[in-house]
Amino acid sequence: MKNYNKLEKKFARITKINQANALLSWDEQVNMPSGASLSRAQVMAEIQLMAQEVLLDNNIPELLENALTENLNTWQISNLRLMERKYTEAIAIPPDLNSAWIMAVLESTQAWRELRSKNDWQSYLPLFKKVVNFSKERGEALASTFGVSTYDALLGTNQEGIDDKLISDIFSDIKTWLPEFIQKAKNKQTLFIPSPAKYAIADQKALCIEIMKEIGFDFMHGRLDVSHHPFCGGVPSDVRLTTRYSEDNFTKSLMATIHETGHALYEQGLPHSWEFQPVGNNLGMSIHESQSLLFEMQIARSPEFLSYLAPKIQKYFTISGEYNTENLCKLYYQVKPGYIRVDADEITYPAHVILRYEIEKNLMEGNIKIEDVPELWNEKMQSYLGIDTKGNYKDGCMQDVHWPSGIFGYFPSYTLGAIMAAQLFASIKRQYPDINSDIAAGDLTKVKDWLANNIWSKASSLSPEQILVGATGETLTSRFFKEHLITRYKLI
Amino acid sequence: MKNYNKLEKKFARITKINQANALLSWDEQVNMPSGASLSRAQVMAEIQLMAQEVLLDNNIPELLENALTENLNTWQISNLRLMERKYTEAIAIPPDLNSAWIMAVLESTQAWRELRSKNDWQSYLPLFKKVVNFSKERGEALASTFGVSTYDALLGTNQEGIDDKLISDIFSDIKTWLPEFIQKAKNKQTLFIPSPAKYAIADQKALCIEIMKEIGFDFMHGRLDVSHHPFCGGVPSDVRLTTRYSEDNFTKSLMATIHETGHALYEQGLPHSWEFQPVGNNLGMSIHESQSLLFEMQIARSPEFLSYLAPKIQKYFTISGEYNTENLCKLYYQVKPGYIRVDADEITYPAHVILRYEIEKNLMEGNIKIEDVPELWNEKMQSYLGIDTKGNYKDGCMQDVHWPSGIFGYFPSYTLGAIMAAQLFASIKRQYPDINSDIAAGDLTKVKDWLANNIWSKASSLSPEQILVGATGETLTSRFFKEHLITRYKLI
Repeated sequence: MKNYNKLEKKFARITKINQANALLSWDEQVNMPSGASLSRAQVMAEIQLMAQEVLLDNNIPELLENALTENLNTWQISNLRLMERKYTEAIAIPPDLNSAWIMAVLESTQAWRELRSKNDWQSYLPLFKKVVNFSKERGEALASTFGVSTYDALLGTNQEGIDDKLISDIFSDIKTWLPEFIQKAKNKQTLFIPSPAKYAIADQKALCIEIMKEIGFDFMHGRLDVSHHPFCGGVPSDVRLTTRYSEDNFTKSLMATIHETGHALYEQGLPHSWEFQPVGNNLGMSIHESQSLLFEMQIARSPEFLSYLAPKIQKYFTISGEYNTENLCKLYYQVKPGYIRVDADEITYPAHVILRYEIEKNLMEGNIKIEDVPELWNEKMQSYLGIDTKGNYKDGCMQDVHWPSGIFGYFPSYTLGAIMAAQLFASIKRQYPDINSDIAAGDLTKVKDWLANNIWSKASSLSPEQILVGATGETLTSRFFKEHLITRYKLI
Repeated sequence: MKNYNKLEKKFARITKINQANALLSWDEQVNMPSGASLSRAQVMAEIQLMAQEVLLDNNIPELLENALTENLNTWQISNLRLMERKYTEAIAIPPDLNSAWIMAVLESTQAWRELRSKNDWQSYLPLFKKVVNFSKERGEALASTFGVSTYDALLGTNQEGIDDKLISDIFSDIKTWLPEFIQKAKNKQTLFIPSPAKYAIADQKALCIEIMKEIGFDFMHGRLDVSHHPFCGGVPSDVRLTTRYSEDNFTKSLMATIHETGHALYEQGLPHSWEFQPVGNNLGMSIHESQSLLFEMQIARSPEFLSYLAPKIQKYFTISGEYNTENLCKLYYQVKPGYIRVDADEITYPAHVILRYEIEKNLMEGNIKIEDVPELWNEKMQSYLGIDTKGNYKDGCMQDVHWPSGIFGYFPSYTLGAIMAAQLFASIKRQYPDINSDIAAGDLTKVKDWLANNIWSKASSLSPEQILVGATGETLTSRFFKEHLITRYKLI
């Protein structure tokens, strides 16, 4: 057997272990009764540790070196590069540090659920300090191996190939025009306040499933369920979407489902033959978010798609005559600064991300004290969105699960994804100038074929930059995102 | 660290891997979309292989030997004995044989699902041969290690401590009286044919959940879902019951749920402090089945419990006035020889088991040819139940998932469990002569305390024989089961 094939065997094992954990994680969020949380965490931590141990196999460096000289095709070469990257990441972090981090995260996420709902920052602070410090140590270990900054090292664990320099440039640009955009959009908007009504959850679910099918979700390889926060989990052969329903409002579950369906199409569109290899994985969180936001923001919230949705909505809900295209546009284009990132509209969302980016970067680079986070949060919320969060930890710095889970360097992906989505969709429009009439007819064939060719089928065989240049002719730019906002919200 | 503690660490890892697989297996049966079956099977096979590899660690024999001389308490000594047993089982089977068996099982179960529904025995036969032969080889490997017969070796993998000699004695006894019992019961019974009606599935589910709660199922550590065949899966901290509903009939989902709740109470009653150690596991499949059948057959189908159920049923289903205690008794005591084991009544059930036992034992001992199974099946069905299965493979030898899954030596557990349940319940009655009035009031406190003390809390710290003698004063006997049938079906 070639050295390369031996490596494929090892990495197939690692991927299978990771898939097992992905399914258990979905189950934890969707099905698990609360009494099982500690036992489940122990099971998942053990499984994670085993994947790590397979990766830390002493033979890997030699196999990697020998495989380099073997006759490999381009996908195999990309796969080999990713294997090396994963191995280097793994040995960069001392096993004891990794275990300590896993245990701190375990403790922290368990406590966070309860303490967030109690708004109890003081009790959470010592646990949070542990997570921040171990995450920082991990980042520093990675940084010294890869010869980059701590924050760049952490960014790389979520999205390889996009560094802080690029993010910082883009976010600086956004900061120059975002406050004005928010103000203008608020001044221009006409609100639509739906009459109070009840929308049966069974009907909402049926509507979501119909739209998922029309968009192209493959139910032979996936499901739709309910969880506290909508997410797209599972594995490429079995993509597990979730949404959440409220009887008072169907518009949120519908758009959340479309968003997650965008994630799902990417996963379902990855090449099956590479399903258990690193090169067969998605290309990272920014690209992933670009797919969900392309479907949600670029397509589903367009006036054209909303005109296609309106009669479907009216079919399910007899009392929903008022959900015509015009009112749906008003509803989905409403701009309103608020506390909560996941509830934010398209224009205020980047402010939430930039705030988190600035704080987490400084936390990881050691420029600020952990106990100062709530005050910094408040200052930035005041400055970017004019909102006071003093004493409101629950809806402030304790609102997201990322930091309690030891995930730093992830938040920028959301806004990078929004920017990429705009850039990709602009390119699709250039190729198919009439794409809006397809969309108005609910026909996404061209969009999906284009994405399948340019993104999904490539998996991780190319870098994000190669993918983006190949698909759009240029590297990442916020230009199209800005133009998209100007057009949609009529800002000029 | 003591050698014993090192072993505990290894076996905690193995148990955690097994728990991960148990949860994935539940998910496969309850949630998985069909397109994912091959990928999922590969993930689960890999995880299983990893548990095996941890067990095959070269250091284990030395650790086991050294641990023997360490100062251990009785639970630790039992744990050590079980560790040794598991290690011996693992090294008995050559890894290549084990992998070949896993792959054959994979192929076979996938094909079986489709071919069974098509009644296509001929296409299934080559796959079945593979599974039978690899299972036999595994049995032989275990047999030569443990110095027992092939079938005894396989029995031992499902229920340690109960051998073919005991089973054969008990089943021979049953065969002497069962045909007469079936005939007499059929002659004596008065049928109750419910009027056709529809029972909303939401109401059936609510009824099942109410009864589960009253019996004592802990929903903080478990769930109720739906699957094609009811089963009790998951892990002790998170017990996953399933049932299945039909709109035309609520009586089956209700009794299946009670049966599985019996399994669940055992799992939920195991000692938490040993949750990741072999000694903390349940004591094997016969004991497990004794718990489900004690709740289903001894308690829930008693006239007393049915009198407690009747008003609850009437509360949920307005059209169910006819489900009074008398009619419920008629319904639940109906005896009717049929094709399908899982649909069989209490008296014909042992015939289904004995038939399978006789065939699988001879298959494993090499006394019969695999292609002769359908003919043997038909002969025995004719002889034991007067039923012709010629050409009907679907409802004949292809009906159960066990053999296609490479599980041989399991079927006897069902009838041994029924026998044990009667023996245990007789003992409870001796201790609490008025227990039937508790049951009529739906109060199972005494029963559960008795089971918790005598069975659940002991986990695998004692042998089945020790448990049984401790709880009932004697070793396994079919006497109480026979008496139970005579009383319930008024056979004398």
